[in-house]
Amino acid sequence: MSRKIRMGMVGGGRGAFIGGVHRIAAAIDQQIELVCGAFSSNPEKSRLSGEDFFLDPSRVYGTYEEMIKKESELPEDVRMDFISIVTPNHMHYGPAKMALEHGFHVVCDKPLAFDLEESRDLVDTVNRTGMIFALTHNYTGYPMVKQARAMIKNGDLGKIRKVVVEYPQGWLATLLEADTEQKQAAWRTDPSKSGIAGSMGDIGTHAENLAEYITGLKIAEMCADISTIVDGRQLDDDGNVLLRFDNGARGILFASQISVGEENSLAIRIYGEKAGLEWHQMEPNTLIVKYQNKANEIYRTGVGELYPETVAAARTPAGHPEGYLEAFANIYRNFSKCVQARIAGVEVDPIYNDYPTVEDGLRGMEFIYKVIESGKSDQKWIKM
Amino acid sequence: MSRKIRMGMVGGGRGAFIGGVHRIAAAIDQQIELVCGAFSSNPEKSRLSGEDFFLDPSRVYGTYEEMIKKESELPEDVRMDFISIVTPNHMHYGPAKMALEHGFHVVCDKPLAFDLEESRDLVDTVNRTGMIFALTHNYTGYPMVKQARAMIKNGDLGKIRKVVVEYPQGWLATLLEADTEQKQAAWRTDPSKSGIAGSMGDIGTHAENLAEYITGLKIAEMCADISTIVDGRQLDDDGNVLLRFDNGARGILFASQISVGEENSLAIRIYGEKAGLEWHQMEPNTLIVKYQNKANEIYRTGVGELYPETVAAARTPAGHPEGYLEAFANIYRNFSKCVQARIAGVEVDPIYNDYPTVEDGLRGMEFIYKVIESGKSDQKWIKM
Amino acid sequence: MSRKIRMGMVGGGRGAFIGGVHRIAAAIDQQIELVCGAFSSNPEKSRLSGEDFFLDPSRVYGTYEEMIKKESELPEDVRMDFISIVTPNHMHYGPAKMALEHGFHVVCDKPLAFDLEESRDLVDTVNRTGMIFALTHNYTGYPMVKQARAMIKNGDLGKIRKVVVEYPQGWLATLLEADTEQKQAAWRTDPSKSGIAGSMGDIGTHAENLAEYITGLKIAEMCADISTIVDGRQLDDDGNVLLRFDNGARGILFASQISVGEENSLAIRIYGEKAGLEWHQMEPNTLIVKYQNKANEIYRTGVGELYPETVAAARTPAGHPEGYLEAFANIYRNFSKCVQARIAGVEVDPIYNDYPTVEDGLRGMEFIYKVIESGKSDQKWIKM
Amino acid sequence: MSRKIRMGMVGGGRGAFIGGVHRIAAAIDQQIELVCGAFSSNPEKSRLSGEDFFLDPSRVYGTYEEMIKKESELPEDVRMDFISIVTPNHMHYGPAKMALEHGFHVVCDKPLAFDLEESRDLVDTVNRTGMIFALTHNYTGYPMVKQARAMIKNGDLGKIRKVVVEYPQGWLATLLEADTEQKQAAWRTDPSKSGIAGSMGDIGTHAENLAEYITGLKIAEMCADISTIVDGRQLDDDGNVLLRFDNGARGILFASQISVGEENSLAIRIYGEKAGLEWHQMEPNTLIVKYQNKANEIYRTGVGELYPETVAAARTPAGHPEGYLEAFANIYRNFSKCVQARIAGVEVDPIYNDYPTVEDGLRGMEFIYKVIESGKSDQKWIKM
Repeated sequence: MSRKIRMGMVGGGRGAFIGGVHRIAAAIDQQIELVCGAFSSNPEKSRLSGEDFFLDPSRVYGTYEEMIKKESELPEDVRMDFISIVTPNHMHYGPAKMALEHGFHVVCDKPLAFDLEESRDLVDTVNRTGMIFALTHNYTGYPMVKQARAMIKNGDLGKIRKVVVEYPQGWLATLLEADTEQKQAAWRTDPSKSGIAGSMGDIGTHAENLAEYITGLKIAEMCADISTIVDGRQLDDDGNVLLRFDNGARGILFASQISVGEENSLAIRIYGEKAGLEWHQMEPNTLIVKYQNKANEIYRTGVGELYPETVAAARTPAGHPEGYLEAFANIYRNFSKCVQARIAGVEVDPIYNDYPTVEDGLRGMEFIYKVIESGKSDQKWIKM
Repeated sequence: MSRKIRMGMVGGGRGAFIGGVHRIAAAIDQQIELVCGAFSSNPEKSRLSGEDFFLDPSRVYGTYEEMIKKESELPEDVRMDFISIVTPNHMHYGPAKMALEHGFHVVCDKPLAFDLEESRDLVDTVNRTGMIFALTHNYTGYPMVKQARAMIKNGDLGKIRKVVVEYPQGWLATLLEADTEQKQAAWRTDPSKSGIAGSMGDIGTHAENLAEYITGLKIAEMCADISTIVDGRQLDDDGNVLLRFDNGARGILFASQISVGEENSLAIRIYGEKAGLEWHQMEPNTLIVKYQNKANEIYRTGVGELYPETVAAARTPAGHPEGYLEAFANIYRNFSKCVQARIAGVEVDPIYNDYPTVEDGLRGMEFIYKVIESGKSDQKWIKM
Repeated sequence: MSRKIRMGMVGGGRGAFIGGVHRIAAAIDQQIELVCGAFSSNPEKSRLSGEDFFLDPSRVYGTYEEMIKKESELPEDVRMDFISIVTPNHMHYGPAKMALEHGFHVVCDKPLAFDLEESRDLVDTVNRTGMIFALTHNYTGYPMVKQARAMIKNGDLGKIRKVVVEYPQGWLATLLEADTEQKQAAWRTDPSKSGIAGSMGDIGTHAENLAEYITGLKIAEMCADISTIVDGRQLDDDGNVLLRFDNGARGILFASQISVGEENSLAIRIYGEKAGLEWHQMEPNTLIVKYQNKANEIYRTGVGELYPETVAAARTPAGHPEGYLEAFANIYRNFSKCVQARIAGVEVDPIYNDYPTVEDGLRGMEFIYKVIESGKSDQKWIKM
Repeated sequence: MSRKIRMGMVGGGRGAFIGGVHRIAAAIDQQIELVCGAFSSNPEKSRLSGEDFFLDPSRVYGTYEEMIKKESELPEDVRMDFISIVTPNHMHYGPAKMALEHGFHVVCDKPLAFDLEESRDLVDTVNRTGMIFALTHNYTGYPMVKQARAMIKNGDLGKIRKVVVEYPQGWLATLLEADTEQKQAAWRTDPSKSGIAGSMGDIGTHAENLAEYITGLKIAEMCADISTIVDGRQLDDDGNVLLRFDNGARGILFASQISVGEENSLAIRIYGEKAGLEWHQMEPNTLIVKYQNKANEIYRTGVGELYPETVAAARTPAGHPEGYLEAFANIYRNFSKCVQARIAGVEVDPIYNDYPTVEDGLRGMEFIYKVIESGKSDQKWIKM
């Protein structure tokens, strides 16, 4: 019989940003119950966070090692089923690897890990253990992203010729990390926590993932101009990249954290032989489909005939905007359906077998390495 | 000590629409746990729904009467704290009244009840019992609606002179209720279930509530043209209304369910002596603020200095769109904070003491009666 | 053989607004030559204006009477063919009547005249003299307005059920007419120059004309709330009107000059049994066509298959925005083609026989009278 | 005394596109009179075109050489003052050079000439003869482009850090030039008429000109990926370019003629230290100004305090959209004011001394050469 699956969280204590997002995303579809956590390296903060979430104090742990060990020892019908990792990048690998090896499934925030070596090891570990691993490239969870992908897969656009994907933000237009209150800015611009990339790791990789997910193409070559615009910053905060895809399509990817006045303006435009499309993350329920000799069309979540995967990704009738949290929840929903099927020993409905995997995470990490390499190189094209 | 509050649901079994929305809205902020329900008048359907929600079968009831009675007999630390009523209009009054009298708080979908008499009795019952009662006029939960209201309250627009509020939909442009599969259409156009009004009760009342909530004004007089456009329909499906507010401001309200191609295009424009504003439900995180001799401004959820009630209504940083479900959740969140404070015997933070009340529900019902009366009358202005 | 037609202008001297618009509109298609004028009641100002336009000083007149008389006496291949009247409302009738009776065609700014009596007399005079008379309800000149009209005429929307037409402006949100520099504001709010209506005559009549032009329907009844919002103003500055059309369609018309932050936000939404449409004057090259169970479409000037009258109303390929001046020019272009055909003694191509007529002007004046009457009346519905 | 200046046209006979645009642009402000032309290499077509424009048949010439020669021999108060060249690229140089050397001013469509050599020679010829030469990079004529430029010049954005300029079209997504009726497509994709570049010469150079005009910066280096997407085409139809400006700012430029469903979506986004801005050619009267910690602003033609050059570039009050033809006309207007001042022997008002020059044309041609060179090169960065 089906049941809610049980989540333990690593990170995400008071004051964090993405932890709260994960908890809401896990709660929305009521398939997941938060049962335990190691919310902070500060035990008092972890304890207080446990209170915030109404947890049994005995299941609020000081470290992820303790959590994984203790939970493993609990009865099968009590212990957590999976962990959700919402720590900074340099703290993904440890809990992910240990959890997998102790028989727990994993949801992990992106990017997959601190570096390429860790990432490769995680792929191996997932393959070896057979556990379910989802990476929260959350933007792929939007219904209209599903629609765009399905349209291309079904040939509605014809052969893809050009892709323009962009992710401008403005929040790091000043040296925000110099302010000790700005913890988000601090770790995301610190190479010891973020890894080799700043903007490219934080948001460039979302753009790369979105482009490959929707088009079904792979980036084959790139030529990057990677910059640190703000004086005193340690990592890149702006990058412009020429792309060539494996089918010959041309592309542009840019990501920026110094584009004053931009919030999270992730957007993608794709042009095929027969039609084009355009999608903006900040108005996510609209997909413009473009034609050469007739009126462009405004596809909307919930309106008219949409592909089944689009329909499955929405909860409300047309005109009730679903947003970022629901898109994020779609990853948790699909993950939870897969875990429930695994527990029940049945095949999962293929419509749910759709979430970013550990391999997507490795590919994202390879992208980060290549794009930083290209940025430093005098060679025009770098193969990926 | 604080704890999650426990919800019992009336209605909302398999195949219903608004019940699922309420469950998600209650789940989002993780302050509420669904513990029991009388999900359907069909006991088998109710039982299956209980399984869907992983409930203890002993707490899945055949009727709301049974649920309220049995739950009352459970130990205080087990029994539900409140009921959520998500049935058609003619089935709001019974469970609401009984719950209140048995010491349960209530969340009720709008409109408040089937008719004016029931509505008045509910106001009396809430006042008499002292229980907490929230009506889900969910559109008031959006951050930018809070901002608009706070701006007007603080005089940023000057004296209000004109209001245009509208709610066009297209889904009833044909006689959908003739199709037996269309249960939403069937009960919403059936006077024995919906009450005296169709479009005016279903969505006109949302428009009225939004206008009064944001402006802080009261409609003083109205002049309505209420129509049934589709042949064979029993209730109104289109209405256009001239308004005069208690401060002398002029206004227009229209609601329509035959406006082909419109989803849920609730929108409001308000003009004061100093500035104006415009908000659209389908792009809810944007509020345009208008000036006569300088550039209009694009206020956005999460950007810049916003009023505290706006900030409190959002969960994510700027650029991550929150939508309908989060706005709906804000009503449950505020309600749950009030109930938790009541349980703990403390004053609730005033920022949470903001949700539509039973009096708002009565006002909405009075609006429905007056607007239908005006539609039938040859008298130009009808006082409210 | 075809030739440019010759224009004499009444009004429109230095400092005026609409005169310059007419001159540009007449110039754009290079079918019209300005040859003379009585540009101002101030002879010196008239003379200087003539210099601005490089006119022969002998054809710059002190009064319209002088102009019409003197031009009549010039040889046929020299004298003007028509006059363009761009004076305030109370000075339309005189030059229009005299010109018609002297065998000159007329282009006249709207509204047709100062009052109903003058308007009726002009209809008679046009009918009696057989001269060509065009009224510059310029908004009907936009390509996408032509498209909307053709779509409805061809049944693409099915039977029309609802119309929402609006024209909010903000420029008279303060008592601008108290400033002696504000000549536009002064005459437009002065009943001795504007007539019985302010906002309703200035812009309400544009909204009425647009709605009837596009739908092909006639307003049958109306119920109006007409207000003077700004203290000290003599005429209405805001009006909200319920409409019923001759086919039973319901409607709303509003026009306002106190809607702070609005420029010239003339817009129309029309809903039929099969489809709906939406057009905004400030983004005039876009027409949204709406459907119930499929994607809405973005019709654009120049893109795909459009009706012939739409194509005829545009000068440039898609994506080169044409605007207000080109729409205005379409009235002059069609008028000039009709005059050229008259001169050549041939039938004009029917596609050009499309401009607002003196009868449209009378209808506009009747609308003004009825809407002001309704505003003052306690009777709910006033027949038109 | 001031007078209209007299224009002779080279090219632009029946069936051409850009010739008609130039004639309208020249007509709008009523400062220019078309007096003669060599409209086509086909004498009959030239003659018929002359009839269309009501010209004296004796001034409709068979060739530009004949026109320049004959007009030179006419009395000074009759002969043309300047020629307007609206032929394909390979036919700019001949008439331009000959006209300049015969003492005629020149307006020339872009790009300046067929190749770099011709372009350099034209710069020399203009400098040597001292005649006035304007190139119709018409997009710089929009009021909001003037505003953007003035804002940056005045430091409103702070130091510029990033520029994204794009010009996608879709009209060449198929091999349109294979259809013999498609004359526009034919010459624009023919290297013997267009020169070394297709999309980069036709529209890429507009993007380059716009970016440098608005920012006041110069492109210092570029790295281009230039493609011919459509099989059988001879010239590029898509190009993506990384830019570095002379102040260190980063940039992206892309131009495409295979972006299905795009009309003329020229757009630019610019980010400085203090603010950013965004402008779209297809909604040209809006300029979004962006800030990091406060509401973005919607600047509009005609609203509030704008820079004098913005005000000078508009003809109508706010809310009456001016478009492509008016922007184009601004170049003719400024050019005509300069010619009139030259004739009158006075200094021109500096606000009119603002139009693209022969040097801008040379720079555009250098851009075309460099971007094509970069597209073919394995070297990452090419200096400009």
